[in-house]
Amino acid sequence: MSVVAVLGANGYGGAGLIRRLSRHPEVGRLRLGSRSYAGHPVADAWPHLAGVYDGTFVTPDEALDGADVVFLATPHGATAPWVHTARAAGARVIDLSADSRLDADTYRTWYGEHPHPGDLADARYGLVEAHRDELPGALLVAAPGCNATAASLALLPYAAAGLMSADTVPVCTVLAGTSGAGRATSPALHFPEFAENARPYKVAGGHRHLAEIEATLGRAAAQGRSLSTHAPYRPLPVSFSPHLVPLVRGILASCTFRPRDGQDQASLLGVMRDAFEHDRMVHVQDELPDVKAVTGSDRALATVRFDRRTGLATAFVVIDNLGKGAAGQAVQGFNLAFGFPETTSLELEGRWP
Amino acid sequence: MSVVAVLGANGYGGAGLIRRLSRHPEVGRLRLGSRSYAGHPVADAWPHLAGVYDGTFVTPDEALDGADVVFLATPHGATAPWVHTARAAGARVIDLSADSRLDADTYRTWYGEHPHPGDLADARYGLVEAHRDELPGALLVAAPGCNATAASLALLPYAAAGLMSADTVPVCTVLAGTSGAGRATSPALHFPEFAENARPYKVAGGHRHLAEIEATLGRAAAQGRSLSTHAPYRPLPVSFSPHLVPLVRGILASCTFRPRDGQDQASLLGVMRDAFEHDRMVHVQDELPDVKAVTGSDRALATVRFDRRTGLATAFVVIDNLGKGAAGQAVQGFNLAFGFPETTSLELEGRWP
Amino acid sequence: MSVVAVLGANGYGGAGLIRRLSRHPEVGRLRLGSRSYAGHPVADAWPHLAGVYDGTFVTPDEALDGADVVFLATPHGATAPWVHTARAAGARVIDLSADSRLDADTYRTWYGEHPHPGDLADARYGLVEAHRDELPGALLVAAPGCNATAASLALLPYAAAGLMSADTVPVCTVLAGTSGAGRATSPALHFPEFAENARPYKVAGGHRHLAEIEATLGRAAAQGRSLSTHAPYRPLPVSFSPHLVPLVRGILASCTFRPRDGQDQASLLGVMRDAFEHDRMVHVQDELPDVKAVTGSDRALATVRFDRRTGLATAFVVIDNLGKGAAGQAVQGFNLAFGFPETTSLELEGRWP
Amino acid sequence: MSVVAVLGANGYGGAGLIRRLSRHPEVGRLRLGSRSYAGHPVADAWPHLAGVYDGTFVTPDEALDGADVVFLATPHGATAPWVHTARAAGARVIDLSADSRLDADTYRTWYGEHPHPGDLADARYGLVEAHRDELPGALLVAAPGCNATAASLALLPYAAAGLMSADTVPVCTVLAGTSGAGRATSPALHFPEFAENARPYKVAGGHRHLAEIEATLGRAAAQGRSLSTHAPYRPLPVSFSPHLVPLVRGILASCTFRPRDGQDQASLLGVMRDAFEHDRMVHVQDELPDVKAVTGSDRALATVRFDRRTGLATAFVVIDNLGKGAAGQAVQGFNLAFGFPETTSLELEGRWP
Repeated sequence: MSVVAVLGANGYGGAGLIRRLSRHPEVGRLRLGSRSYAGHPVADAWPHLAGVYDGTFVTPDEALDGADVVFLATPHGATAPWVHTARAAGARVIDLSADSRLDADTYRTWYGEHPHPGDLADARYGLVEAHRDELPGALLVAAPGCNATAASLALLPYAAAGLMSADTVPVCTVLAGTSGAGRATSPALHFPEFAENARPYKVAGGHRHLAEIEATLGRAAAQGRSLSTHAPYRPLPVSFSPHLVPLVRGILASCTFRPRDGQDQASLLGVMRDAFEHDRMVHVQDELPDVKAVTGSDRALATVRFDRRTGLATAFVVIDNLGKGAAGQAVQGFNLAFGFPETTSLELEGRWP
Repeated sequence: MSVVAVLGANGYGGAGLIRRLSRHPEVGRLRLGSRSYAGHPVADAWPHLAGVYDGTFVTPDEALDGADVVFLATPHGATAPWVHTARAAGARVIDLSADSRLDADTYRTWYGEHPHPGDLADARYGLVEAHRDELPGALLVAAPGCNATAASLALLPYAAAGLMSADTVPVCTVLAGTSGAGRATSPALHFPEFAENARPYKVAGGHRHLAEIEATLGRAAAQGRSLSTHAPYRPLPVSFSPHLVPLVRGILASCTFRPRDGQDQASLLGVMRDAFEHDRMVHVQDELPDVKAVTGSDRALATVRFDRRTGLATAFVVIDNLGKGAAGQAVQGFNLAFGFPETTSLELEGRWP
Repeated sequence: MSVVAVLGANGYGGAGLIRRLSRHPEVGRLRLGSRSYAGHPVADAWPHLAGVYDGTFVTPDEALDGADVVFLATPHGATAPWVHTARAAGARVIDLSADSRLDADTYRTWYGEHPHPGDLADARYGLVEAHRDELPGALLVAAPGCNATAASLALLPYAAAGLMSADTVPVCTVLAGTSGAGRATSPALHFPEFAENARPYKVAGGHRHLAEIEATLGRAAAQGRSLSTHAPYRPLPVSFSPHLVPLVRGILASCTFRPRDGQDQASLLGVMRDAFEHDRMVHVQDELPDVKAVTGSDRALATVRFDRRTGLATAFVVIDNLGKGAAGQAVQGFNLAFGFPETTSLELEGRWP
Repeated sequence: MSVVAVLGANGYGGAGLIRRLSRHPEVGRLRLGSRSYAGHPVADAWPHLAGVYDGTFVTPDEALDGADVVFLATPHGATAPWVHTARAAGARVIDLSADSRLDADTYRTWYGEHPHPGDLADARYGLVEAHRDELPGALLVAAPGCNATAASLALLPYAAAGLMSADTVPVCTVLAGTSGAGRATSPALHFPEFAENARPYKVAGGHRHLAEIEATLGRAAAQGRSLSTHAPYRPLPVSFSPHLVPLVRGILASCTFRPRDGQDQASLLGVMRDAFEHDRMVHVQDELPDVKAVTGSDRALATVRFDRRTGLATAFVVIDNLGKGAAGQAVQGFNLAFGFPETTSLELEGRWP
């Protein structure tokens, strides 16, 4: 039974970690670190925990002190130093930020200079369904971005099977709920401004999750279905158009690509089913998926449609950005890294309505 | 380990029961009855269970056959015959409909002639916080209505303590989410008609949950904090104004009453705290509550405010109409009736955001 | 054709004024003042006006310079000095803030010391349906608060007719959309925090619109249907419970009161119809009203229900808080003050869906 | 001053027509036909018109009798016979359904056999910005589908200029509000099922608006910027993925295509600006557009983004599906056909928030 720290426990990623880790049988003591709420009862930040969870936030340093495992739900840029500190103190780390997801060169392109590039050698990219074989024993798990998770899962089966035509750039459109932007207020997400609204954002190569998607698909094209974070690959170029929609939770990725000749609806769906056959947290189905079907869940639902008219196919994935897209996937990676049963403390079903 | 049947398993109450009973350690086999979905996979009705819950709906009769316990999440009017059949077969019953909640005379006033009034003698009203002492061993638990739960809990402490001035009728305004209306479509709840909308409905004595509220408060005035379903009482008149608001889940009851002389903010909040001191599923707090704080939870959050200017007080309760207002409360009553720990399989915390 | 200035033209009240005044046939030149947007195109603040309204914001001082009429959609507290400046320069003023609505003593109780109490002598309270006779020629029109408008209109007919029992405090519950809080962000109205949420706020005498409601109803009790802002009256005490609900626009007031003996459903509805018989912007109907029916409109819809069981009645009013509750009512008052036809440039119908 | 009939006046398209035609200076008498509401006051169907519009629905036959112009807001399949009847009676027709939009062969492929193919010779496709030159004098205007309007406008500038690479199929993703599905209830749009939800539908060549999009773009490729409904062309293949999102109103089309070599961000935006330079109802802007910016408006907002990494560009268009996507565009076409100023009675600005 280990001491587990969560930093950024007052954010949405943190709330999901509290839920899952507080009931995780292998977590001994849970420490909730928050710079802004240190010393305050957990219920001050989380009204839904009033009377249920009686703990108090501590400072990040207090949370780290003596921790065996550290979950970092802190902003990108600010997280790499915490990784370094925690690793230096001998703790294993699950990093929900972007700071451990990319190699130093790619990180520089999208986020700026990485302050501790040496720490990245231990990182394993935590998209469990793709990196399952290298996660056991991992010292540093880099939980993927929410948009990247959805888009990568949609195309992974086809990239891994070499079924995507190289002469057509896949087009991924993502519909993203608002909680992905975090808990800090912004004029664009003020309720009267965003209710009954939707808008594209960071399109045409402007969204940083693109780096992860292109890396994952590039690795899959080079390495098949069992990916290695540090083996060589070439990014697979993708057109990526995120759209913010008036949901609290949920991501729907629609990725249109050109399959190699000879594919049809049945074969494409078969490839997807085979790819995720042993993955409990990805369910492949015939029906086009509802975002609501994964609200509150840590699973992804996926399907594909082939358009005979154009010869293009579109793969669809829905996830809860705070479930499979954040805390759920982080705990899934934690379970793999530590050899716990993969679905321990995860949310399998969501809730309807 | 018992055989448990759920009738109406394709409705919202049914979905909540599937969630809670499928993980309940004292439930051996779970049978899901649905007239319209009999023979179909559960995922046909519930997309969130695709790949998680592999069962198939059966007919109501198949579900009842040999069941030890029957949960009825079927419409009022249609449920009393199922109660009768199940009881005749020796099963104990948790009835989520209105059909077991009222005595035959009151039922006649609000719903029409009860087809099996003799069955009502075994009924125990399942507002656990008020009827806790008579629920153990109950053969028929009548789970309260969602609006009635919220409004009754708000005023229960004051009615039980004799602190409500008799010359002022309490005014209960309820804001109710749309899932309380059930899964059947209606023009009034068509998305384009009800998004960005709100409306009062069944006001001025028109809502049938009023009968339950007035009974519970009348019992509390006569019996204090430990209520008996069948002991004599006089209904306590209430003005009840329900309003439909654009939420999927949630009820917020605001009940304004005149406390007897000598009360103030501190004493009224103290009375409420004392009243629910031993109730795990009701949390009394200083802060005005958010509906979101109980979304997905089986708890109620409550507080009270005294207005010195007018001498009136307003008690506030929030619940998830599908949690504490339906499946959660039904399972809570089931736990009491069978002697299981009260919170077994209940949702203590909700989710945020 | 006059020069009209709007201050606070970058807020929601301002947007409504731009819409109505830019098409008002009696408005010659329209100047839009905004401290934060001065020098910027109107479309920078208002994306819906891009390509339609080609003007540029000016500073408040520039807007005021030489203006014949000034609309003030600036925050309470900050507005009284603008009133003073504009009046000193000879302009007539329509004040949408709270700063001209109350006498100096009442203002002190709720908002603090008024900086220019001498200016209040010219103020006329702009609830047109109640103050119709004193608005023509008004030099300073104080547009009422949105919640106050809805609650006051609901009870006005009965207070004016002396039909409210004095021994029962009326209970007004208001459901209020989020745009009433203005355009500035707040954690409580961050989309992920407030979608699928509702909460009471400033209850039990805590909401400052209460002062207006009690003044209007007190005046009506003393003066009948033609109210004078400065004639003596005693405030009529009201219990007021506002609730924030997940709407962009809309207010629904439900006000429960005890009518004097001898009233019934027909007589109470008749009193309401008679009271507003000549008011184009208030429509009395049999049906319980939908908030959506006034979205985008400057009208109020109203009805009443009598509950024979309790002897209480509940009056209902719906308005668009940005229409009849803000810019619409301000322009209606402007029309009255200047002798233009009352509905000039107002939105009579809303939009559905 | 002419007699104008609206059939299907109880649907959402009908409500928009009532709003615009009731204030249209060239409309003499307006007759509202509705099979289901004939004989009932307009307010029975439209609560927002209670007290504003005092008319009564008539039967479709009564509405048609002696009408000079007939607007058909009736379902596809059921509308062609009304077109025939109205045309036989000498009326000119604005058809909002799909029944006059396609040639008989294409109609057969997507909708089935057309009952009156001979009537189609008079049809002019009412996408005003593309068919402006052939609409004056038109006897039968076929108002385009809402999704088709958004997607066609996005790519029209590039198809007309011959700037779309022929070897890459453009991928159009559409986010569509729920009112596009009409006023009839459906389980999928029951409020508790669709709030906090989103889903793809009719993807991979399954949506019938695709026929219109491919026709318009094919015509533009062949004919440039001034299109003729009946001149020869080859459809331009498009991949079309519609997604239903939890909006009442609004469509956002994101269309990704490969521009011919030599284009960049500035040139592509310049092409779009030039294309719509003289179109009052399409506004090209630098900023990515908000759906809310056109809610309640009859305009489209458009922009484009070039992605140097992939060489692909994405064109964005937002419209109100009930404005530019339905009633607004129908009235725009009516104005062109009859020689009235193009924007007569149209909604130029929307409303914010």
